[in-house]
Amino acid sequence: MHKEESIDHHLRATWQAVSKMYNEQATKHDSTMATAFVLLSIDYENGTPSTSLGPHMGMEATSLSRILKNMEDKGVIYREKNPQDGRGVLIKLTEFGKEKRAFAKKVVLRFNNVVKANVTNEQLKNFFEVMRVINTLIGKNAFYDTKKV
Amino acid sequence: MHKEESIDHHLRATWQAVSKMYNEQATKHDSTMATAFVLLSIDYENGTPSTSLGPHMGMEATSLSRILKNMEDKGVIYREKNPQDGRGVLIKLTEFGKEKRAFAKKVVLRFNNVVKANVTNEQLKNFFEVMRVINTLIGKNAFYDTKKV
Repeated sequence: MHKEESIDHHLRATWQAVSKMYNEQATKHDSTMATAFVLLSIDYENGTPSTSLGPHMGMEATSLSRILKNMEDKGVIYREKNPQDGRGVLIKLTEFGKEKRAFAKKVVLRFNNVVKANVTNEQLKNFFEVMRVINTLIGKNAFYDTKKV
Repeated sequence: MHKEESIDHHLRATWQAVSKMYNEQATKHDSTMATAFVLLSIDYENGTPSTSLGPHMGMEATSLSRILKNMEDKGVIYREKNPQDGRGVLIKLTEFGKEKRAFAKKVVLRFNNVVKANVTNEQLKNFFEVMRVINTLIGKNAFYDTKKV
């Protein structure tokens, strides 16, 4: 099998290309893609518990806490005691953070809208279906050889 | 737009899930996914010029040279003067590296074959087509707002 035909190769190369493009756009705003994802993951009005951000983003706790520290220093987020959970902390957007979030949202929407305008509904449906199948198979451990290679 | 419907979200989450699965399999062999990708990118018999590995893998020079140093220490690769280029270096597989490469190839083939067995040709064709469209649009800078948001 030639690499150009392989599913994992396409997934990896395409995601790398998209994240490079996202990072380029973020750089123009003195930001990064990871920061933009955090901004988009925080509830606009009520903030989001710090503990639920990591799992939501598929990010490790140490990477996330480094990013949050940096975002706090830049004044886009602040921490507040969670009224629903005495020991918990809410991550909330500052006004500046809300502006940055609006920009990140614009970039993400533009990406999705431009792609959708250039493929058919059928192609998009099948694209999502293949993704769904891959995730389901991973969930079922379908890629592990029980004979332990 | 709900995030579950967004193309970039699916791409990112699916690639993260695949790379987590690849890393888990690599860990069992005291390796990493990045190492496995390097092994698969080296020509089995003739080796590969060190300068062509980075671009091929979409990896930055500093990350790649750290990985290559580590792989040399583990005895899976060695460096040799490139007979075609006096100043160049070839990265070649040791016998142990060839064994490791065979395992990595098995894991990648298994992933691709299991996915292909679980989707239709039409679905796969459309999956590749959407990827192709995304890469083409990125190449044309279609996601940058000329009005500079």
